[in-house]
Amino acid sequence: MPARLKDVASRAGVSIKTVSNVVNGYVHVAPETRAKVQAAIDALGYVPNPTARRLRGGGTGVIALAVPELRSPYFAELAGLIVRAAEPRGWTVLIEQTDGRAERERDLVSGLRRHSIDGLILSPAGLDATEVLTGGLPTVLLGERMWDGPADHVAVDGAAAAADATRHLLRLGRWRIAAIGAPDRPTAVTRTQRLAGFRAAMAGSGLAVDPRLVVPVSGMHRADGAAAMARLLDQVEQPPDAIFCFTDPLALGAIRTCADRGLDVPGDVAVIGFDGIEEGRYSTPSLSTIAPNTGRIAQFAVDLLAERLGGGVSAAVPPRAICVEHRLLARESTLGRLR
Amino acid sequence: MPARLKDVASRAGVSIKTVSNVVNGYVHVAPETRAKVQAAIDALGYVPNPTARRLRGGGTGVIALAVPELRSPYFAELAGLIVRAAEPRGWTVLIEQTDGRAERERDLVSGLRRHSIDGLILSPAGLDATEVLTGGLPTVLLGERMWDGPADHVAVDGAAAAADATRHLLRLGRWRIAAIGAPDRPTAVTRTQRLAGFRAAMAGSGLAVDPRLVVPVSGMHRADGAAAMARLLDQVEQPPDAIFCFTDPLALGAIRTCADRGLDVPGDVAVIGFDGIEEGRYSTPSLSTIAPNTGRIAQFAVDLLAERLGGGVSAAVPPRAICVEHRLLARESTLGRLR
Repeated sequence: MPARLKDVASRAGVSIKTVSNVVNGYVHVAPETRAKVQAAIDALGYVPNPTARRLRGGGTGVIALAVPELRSPYFAELAGLIVRAAEPRGWTVLIEQTDGRAERERDLVSGLRRHSIDGLILSPAGLDATEVLTGGLPTVLLGERMWDGPADHVAVDGAAAAADATRHLLRLGRWRIAAIGAPDRPTAVTRTQRLAGFRAAMAGSGLAVDPRLVVPVSGMHRADGAAAMARLLDQVEQPPDAIFCFTDPLALGAIRTCADRGLDVPGDVAVIGFDGIEEGRYSTPSLSTIAPNTGRIAQFAVDLLAERLGGGVSAAVPPRAICVEHRLLARESTLGRLR
Repeated sequence: MPARLKDVASRAGVSIKTVSNVVNGYVHVAPETRAKVQAAIDALGYVPNPTARRLRGGGTGVIALAVPELRSPYFAELAGLIVRAAEPRGWTVLIEQTDGRAERERDLVSGLRRHSIDGLILSPAGLDATEVLTGGLPTVLLGERMWDGPADHVAVDGAAAAADATRHLLRLGRWRIAAIGAPDRPTAVTRTQRLAGFRAAMAGSGLAVDPRLVVPVSGMHRADGAAAMARLLDQVEQPPDAIFCFTDPLALGAIRTCADRGLDVPGDVAVIGFDGIEEGRYSTPSLSTIAPNTGRIAQFAVDLLAERLGGGVSAAVPPRAICVEHRLLARESTLGRLR
């Protein structure tokens, strides 16, 4: 007969609750107690039974975080923040890379793994709003997608943020402004929103947008930004005097191409990105950017999920949407060297 | 009575094996078949029973990857590669951030979650070799740690790679070479190995190492590199003419401090890092670095684990250790602008 929780408690000389705390990974267990319980678990070959735990209402203590790709510093940094935000609750966060593929996101939200995870934080890149959440796994969505969506949602106002970036360039007296990162397909909602914000700010200043200065990309990485900048420079006689790049890696790639072509940043071309990743603080020139408050995104995501899991909010409460603020970080790539 | 696999198969009009392939996330299932099975799963509320699946020897199709931190681009990029390498096997990879804490690594290797994962790829930062692998969960270790360790192991020869970085600086005629990233505690094995390689290369050229030019750090990020470089410059009359930084982020931080202090890289100070992260290809100056073959690390890690899981290698086969090659990428931060 397999060992039960109370066998472990009895052997370790602690309460069942203490064993449960260790098994669930809660942090407030003294190291020596944890070691004693672990020794008893090892000796008895005890394996926690997730189904039994769920029936007792304890949950697995494990949530999943699904992001399109960890190679993107924004998602890698956000993942780290969510792990930290979940720690005081004693949650383990398992991170999954979806590559933005609809079928992987579908597998997650369909609840196929609901025996091993309690809830899901998902940054969708492939699924349509209508497809999300048929499986009943408590889920919080991240990103600009799915306002009025089917689940709790923490988002940034991408259009407003993009307009802020563009207005920063306009205030510096730049008029011939390019945008790198336009969508290459209609489902790229994040980029569509940022492009709308760019256009709105330009229109607000009475400026027409030269269509040759709006450059679509198929990826959001440094290499995509470097290639897009090269394409842009090849197809216009006169370079733009400023560029709004829809992610920081795109901006860092574009700046690299400027250096290779002998263009001074920001003397010839001012460049601003969008993400607020750490890399931009240390690059040369340091990168002006729009920084969503990622610490707060992480905290809200965990808190909203905890309310659903802990019953603090009933399942009947309709999906909540929280918009997190962003900041303009003006640095050397638009302002020049600060001495 | 809960729905069973064969109920799903019958409703979808497919074989039990096909349902099993969908549930296990195998990739070679036609999209329309997958959709049919998914519809049947949804309609019947079928939940796969992991215990039953394990009893049938099928495993969960899920492995865990544990890395110290995703904020580190090296680990974020490596995680992405491991997810890709696992894909042809139909595995789902769940990623966990341990923050290098021994207790989190212990929880993982102790097999407490063996009901929901089949195996583990672990980059240990907190545990001692003697502590690893009491739980019997098939595990592959990554990193420089634990040669002759208790499990299969994919590693880089950190000392040899550090010596290569140092010799590159020596070949450029630099003699007054600093090292940023020395260990601040004896358990920091990776850094201890890199420091040993640095010292060996210096000694091999008959050069003494000025102890003030060996700078310990408590973290390996850009901010740590920037602060270490500032400390270094403050405590010597004459700056070093070259620096070997033990990670790329340390190097990028150090280069930023050089820019702030009016030092030209590489004119005044040549800088080389260690990681081969994408960021260094696009930085200005682009970053010379030691690049472990991370694609091969990812492939070996998955292959070794697959052999243990699939029974291709019996449990009686002692731990195997594979050393993956590295390359010196000489770029602008040591060679200057290439035109």
